[in-house]
Amino acid sequence: MAKPIGVFDSGVGGLTVLKALREKLPGRDFIYFSDTARVPYGRKPREMVRGFAYEIAAFLLQQEVAAIVVACNTASACALPGLAGDTPVPVWGVIDPGVEAARRVTLSGRVGVIGTKGTIEAGVYQDKLRALGLDVWAQACPMFVHLVEEGLAESDEAEVLARHYLENHPDIDTLILGCTHYPVIQPVIRRVMGEGVRLVSSAEVTAEAVAAVLPPDGSGGGSVIHYVTGGVPAYRHTAAVIGGVEGPVIPLDVSRLGDAG
Amino acid sequence: MAKPIGVFDSGVGGLTVLKALREKLPGRDFIYFSDTARVPYGRKPREMVRGFAYEIAAFLLQQEVAAIVVACNTASACALPGLAGDTPVPVWGVIDPGVEAARRVTLSGRVGVIGTKGTIEAGVYQDKLRALGLDVWAQACPMFVHLVEEGLAESDEAEVLARHYLENHPDIDTLILGCTHYPVIQPVIRRVMGEGVRLVSSAEVTAEAVAAVLPPDGSGGGSVIHYVTGGVPAYRHTAAVIGGVEGPVIPLDVSRLGDAG
Repeated sequence: MAKPIGVFDSGVGGLTVLKALREKLPGRDFIYFSDTARVPYGRKPREMVRGFAYEIAAFLLQQEVAAIVVACNTASACALPGLAGDTPVPVWGVIDPGVEAARRVTLSGRVGVIGTKGTIEAGVYQDKLRALGLDVWAQACPMFVHLVEEGLAESDEAEVLARHYLENHPDIDTLILGCTHYPVIQPVIRRVMGEGVRLVSSAEVTAEAVAAVLPPDGSGGGSVIHYVTGGVPAYRHTAAVIGGVEGPVIPLDVSRLGDAG
Repeated sequence: MAKPIGVFDSGVGGLTVLKALREKLPGRDFIYFSDTARVPYGRKPREMVRGFAYEIAAFLLQQEVAAIVVACNTASACALPGLAGDTPVPVWGVIDPGVEAARRVTLSGRVGVIGTKGTIEAGVYQDKLRALGLDVWAQACPMFVHLVEEGLAESDEAEVLARHYLENHPDIDTLILGCTHYPVIQPVIRRVMGEGVRLVSSAEVTAEAVAAVLPPDGSGGGSVIHYVTGGVPAYRHTAAVIGGVEGPVIPLDVSRLGDAG
């Protein structure tokens, strides 16, 4: 039986990536690590988030994963490519697949990217897109994650904030949803952006990138084990906004996580 | 030396109550418990939050506190008055002091209350205010906590959301800030509500209620010990939006907290 794939995020957003991965790799086993004791990462210092990512990768390696998916834009921006170089199994972030997909689908060469404050201020998307010769509009949407986690993805608040963040966008034909929570709020983003702009979900395109490299596995049972650093019932409750949790949820003491490496 | 006062909240919001308490009770020692592994409480089921409050009160009693302040509106609404009846030391919530203050300051008898979705839907403020013969307008403002914790208390997003929630308020002369985070976002609330409406901060009035009953203590050093269920650096970082943390911060394993009772 093939080793499981480790997927991690600061919270529940990465469950959109897990869902896409399971659809593209049926039979594969997964470990999903949710760092809910320290969520959100988006406004924490870069070095702090980098340290979290290394701790979690060390834990996942102890669980003998075959590969690691950093299903969190902030952690991808802060810890990659260093983490991939320091890890003995393949490591994917969610940024490069989104950038590649945007390059493929844009016709005008003018693309946008939205994400948390941390992701946008890090400038990683912008640098990578510009290095490909694309024109880039970048907009931080720090309240979108909270709309999703409050269960307000379809609400007056979502409309008001989406218009505030997006209404004055320049002429682009492609928009990268640079945060794993955003597929949940995609209907409002779609309404405000209009039908002429293609939306690139980093959850979808990351799962495609992983599935293109990792072999399918007919022997596994397609199981998922969740590890969480915060409370278990609270995790289950918040995860309901992304579609819920399947499989056991095991609590970890975050203050001892650093010992894992 | 007098025993410390235990103060608890789901996160950092209760630090506004702690700050007010320390100003009114100089020399008193405090224990501040922040349940950051399970924050936010506002949208979790009532029975779940009630269970959290009992677990935390049991832990504080083990630390031999002289009194407990539930510095969280959601926990006050879900766990009181039951928790006070079941606890051998005095227990204050933040709701009754706010209700009492509103009754004192209103001239027209028409008051408003804002809070999280959980607090407003529980209806505790409304019931208590109406029992005093007051007319009540209640408005859930679920995104305000996130504005504060994102460091966006003075931002375009805060203006947009405050107008959305508050602009169409009826004719009231008093507004209870029914969430311990809201003192931080008070300037925007003040601007949207206008000068004619008095704002009642539950942090301030709760501290006044406690100070009116507990004796001053000349022997203590005015120390604070913080216990957190989530990560320590992450707590310090988020607490910075309320003014920061003074004193040691000790991590606790939330999955073992239930054993404390």
